[in-house]
Amino acid sequence: MNLQTICWKNNKIRIIDQTRLPVKLAYLDISTLQELREAIQLLRVRGAPALGAAAGLGVYLGIKDSRAADFTAFSREMEKVIAYLGSSRPTARNLFWGLERMRLTALRHKGETIPHLQQRLFDEAEAIIEEDRSACRAIGAAGASLIKDGDSILTVCNAGSLATIDYGTAIGVMYSAHAAGKKIKVYACETRPLLQGSRLTVWELKQNGLDVTLLCDNMVASLMGQGKVDKVIVGADRIVANGDTANKIGTQNAAIISAFYRVPFYVAAPASTFDLSIGTGKGIPIEQRASHEVTSLFFKEEMSARGVHVYNPAFDVTPHGLITAIITDKGVIRPPFRRNIVRVLK
Amino acid sequence: MNLQTICWKNNKIRIIDQTRLPVKLAYLDISTLQELREAIQLLRVRGAPALGAAAGLGVYLGIKDSRAADFTAFSREMEKVIAYLGSSRPTARNLFWGLERMRLTALRHKGETIPHLQQRLFDEAEAIIEEDRSACRAIGAAGASLIKDGDSILTVCNAGSLATIDYGTAIGVMYSAHAAGKKIKVYACETRPLLQGSRLTVWELKQNGLDVTLLCDNMVASLMGQGKVDKVIVGADRIVANGDTANKIGTQNAAIISAFYRVPFYVAAPASTFDLSIGTGKGIPIEQRASHEVTSLFFKEEMSARGVHVYNPAFDVTPHGLITAIITDKGVIRPPFRRNIVRVLK
Repeated sequence: MNLQTICWKNNKIRIIDQTRLPVKLAYLDISTLQELREAIQLLRVRGAPALGAAAGLGVYLGIKDSRAADFTAFSREMEKVIAYLGSSRPTARNLFWGLERMRLTALRHKGETIPHLQQRLFDEAEAIIEEDRSACRAIGAAGASLIKDGDSILTVCNAGSLATIDYGTAIGVMYSAHAAGKKIKVYACETRPLLQGSRLTVWELKQNGLDVTLLCDNMVASLMGQGKVDKVIVGADRIVANGDTANKIGTQNAAIISAFYRVPFYVAAPASTFDLSIGTGKGIPIEQRASHEVTSLFFKEEMSARGVHVYNPAFDVTPHGLITAIITDKGVIRPPFRRNIVRVLK
Repeated sequence: MNLQTICWKNNKIRIIDQTRLPVKLAYLDISTLQELREAIQLLRVRGAPALGAAAGLGVYLGIKDSRAADFTAFSREMEKVIAYLGSSRPTARNLFWGLERMRLTALRHKGETIPHLQQRLFDEAEAIIEEDRSACRAIGAAGASLIKDGDSILTVCNAGSLATIDYGTAIGVMYSAHAAGKKIKVYACETRPLLQGSRLTVWELKQNGLDVTLLCDNMVASLMGQGKVDKVIVGADRIVANGDTANKIGTQNAAIISAFYRVPFYVAAPASTFDLSIGTGKGIPIEQRASHEVTSLFFKEEMSARGVHVYNPAFDVTPHGLITAIITDKGVIRPPFRRNIVRVLK
């Protein structure tokens, strides 16, 4: 399989429309910022690293036709684009990291002509994409050494090729172990309400020939209690200074249950997911999403009584004390995290 | 609301068809054992105490037209009925308890005529129903004393009126506290894959005017980590000698997370749910259900890649060490459970 989650093609942003998987592998060409922001909000494109790429390409999309007369005017336009894209989803660090990279690139080249600046920004967006490819492979290599032949590995949501450019973080580790000839068994939590585990993780693991078993999120303790899980590996949307990690809702559940059954719990993420400006998990903004995601399945099937209150956070925060190690493109970080994150990422 | 989950009406078993809720409140009249067994397997009627009543009425349905010439022939017919109904679902204790009660009733009156025996069995089935009504109210009364004004209570699956004759076990405790004027807030886990929490618990709590908020099963840690849950109360399908408790899948998850956040965790069940013939939870048979329950929503929506392996146990076992107390119709049982279960239930 050689798919690319997001790329620049024919002067547009081309994404795999992930809301249509696993029924159909469909591409969507995006030519306006409004379409891009909606695609992010509806999770047509999702996954923290892929959102970093969306930020880069999105800023370029927003300024490529600028007729600004000078840098001040250009910068004003670009800041509007950045603010607009930054208001799409609040939790994934990589989105803001990508926007900031684009801003800094413009500032670094502020003396150049507008067409040159535009080219610089295109190159930067492409660099984000290329760096993600490398980072995921580095994560895969670093993490694969932790995986033993015969391991059963549980994961939450989708931190695979569909969450990145083409390889994955948590699932990249599994691809890397698989490629090295280790026989592994993957357990994929379905990940309610939007079923990224069921729809995306199962699909891509099967496409790549891995052995995958699907379970509902509330079956984790049942499975672990029987000793059927050797390791948990999940992705991350934001990792803060003390190691507390925001990731897809259900990760915190799985981490607590892992600790109870003494199953090692790993987080896999590129350096771009770290946010050292925040001290602890309490500072991470958590996106709350609409109730219909829980009460109806993609608007099709009514599953609860009308008008019920719904609690629907898209992410939760796993306390660092429950994390065995964080697998990054710079190496594996072990506790104490506050010290070792800085040491490894520097 | 004055609904009855299961009753004898017009010479048939009348049930609320729970697969049609919350969209429609529909009754189903059952006149054959095949229909009853299918209704149990498809969860048209479900909930351990309601299955006890289904066992009683089911045995009567199976023998009411018997033309056996003597007790030996009658008993042979009845044993076939018992074996057939007993093969419907393996985990809920009350089903087998109900079947055993019917068998013992027949044996106790074996010297009577067949029509008299049939009447005795009808009376016994009705007694099971009446005792469930009383037991649920006794559980409600015993449990309500544990609930404080202002409490937020999380529950899993449906242990309400729809799981019993008309009141509920875990939710009966909430009804009782609510009736006593305590203001409580209920959090209902949706309970994948068949969504009994979303479809049934939310529906009946709203019908009865309680404040209920729905969440996905993977949001429990997020909610508890914010201190939003004061207590957990769940039902039970089978409680064994040491207090280990089989209940709907997801209960074990919630219990572990409750322990992590030091939230009291209560089980509510009538005496008929206890199975002291089994020493520990390892001895409880756990029903494994079909994969399509996880991969498609009621056969309507494909949610995963075709042919994926699925882990789909219908129940899990909560270790007794995670249970604060068991609320029964005979009183509240606290640890050490092995001793106190015998003492309270005797």
